[in-house]
Amino acid sequence: MKKLLIASNNAHKFEELSAILSHLDLKLFKPRDLGVDLEVAETGNSYYENALIKAQAFHEASGLPVLADDSGLEVMALDGLPGIHSHRFVPFGNATDRDRCFYLLGRLAGKPEPWLAAFHSTALLYINANEIYSSEGICPGKIITDYRGENGFGFDPVFYIPEQKQTMAELSSELKNQISHRARAIQGFNALRNWAKP
Amino acid sequence: MKKLLIASNNAHKFEELSAILSHLDLKLFKPRDLGVDLEVAETGNSYYENALIKAQAFHEASGLPVLADDSGLEVMALDGLPGIHSHRFVPFGNATDRDRCFYLLGRLAGKPEPWLAAFHSTALLYINANEIYSSEGICPGKIITDYRGENGFGFDPVFYIPEQKQTMAELSSELKNQISHRARAIQGFNALRNWAKP
Repeated sequence: MKKLLIASNNAHKFEELSAILSHLDLKLFKPRDLGVDLEVAETGNSYYENALIKAQAFHEASGLPVLADDSGLEVMALDGLPGIHSHRFVPFGNATDRDRCFYLLGRLAGKPEPWLAAFHSTALLYINANEIYSSEGICPGKIITDYRGENGFGFDPVFYIPEQKQTMAELSSELKNQISHRARAIQGFNALRNWAKP
Repeated sequence: MKKLLIASNNAHKFEELSAILSHLDLKLFKPRDLGVDLEVAETGNSYYENALIKAQAFHEASGLPVLADDSGLEVMALDGLPGIHSHRFVPFGNATDRDRCFYLLGRLAGKPEPWLAAFHSTALLYINANEIYSSEGICPGKIITDYRGENGFGFDPVFYIPEQKQTMAELSSELKNQISHRARAIQGFNALRNWAKP
């Protein structure tokens, strides 16, 4: 069984990816399992670049193949913002996820509805410096002037998925792990599936 | 010593007004002191109308002379919003004061700074149906992309007062009760001062 390090210190993200990857025959590690303690500055100009920066850093620190993910919310009426800048979207250091949601609603006030949006994820498999693969996933929806649901994180409570009649934060974990941007990036990741084969 | 009922269930506002009125020779009551339990819908189209609606209701319920206050934040770049609609500004029922601040910052994103603003207060003295007086106070400042200070409430943490180099929420109570919109409305309220004389 191959070993794979998930390049994230975020417990939420690790849980999600573990569940999404559970059908593959892999032994997953989080950085802490290996004594790896890294804060990686996401200075890239794209999801791919940010995922690559994280994957490289965690590969160098661990020697293991690494799966990195970089994701963001893109709102059409804001020309794709917050995008890869989701965490720097609010010009205020100690903003919480909830603060960011209300800031986003303020940004959208007065713009014609529906406020179409999509969550975007780039998953990147870094086996070594010569074998790097990536896959993208998108989950379309719209921003609503409401704040609903206790699951998830980030902009999930204001991101509504019409087919499900729920916000991303209202979805059960099972459903989220089938239809989320992150799930879709992994579902279409042939290189990952091939590599994972025993 | 004349009796005066403060027409507000808001403990913050009662404390502030008590301090601001402390130089007058009045015995102040809050509604609960008199067993008055009223929720008044602020359906007016101006600070004055809202203050009058509240004052009338509390006067009818208590028989006492009443001091009512209606206040709001006016932001120039938003054509005076949130104004008297401060509480309905965020289109979401359970929004907190902090949520409203971040929503406001979102509304202002991209608009040229400085984001000039003013807190506005209308204080209204309702002695009886034939003796009604009012006074206005304004505290000018600007909205900043920060969230500073633990005192105060509402939009105070994002309202910066250049002369003091502090947000409204950073001011000491003593200073706030000298320079706030509410303080200024009372300071200039000659009818109140004359009526309060023993």
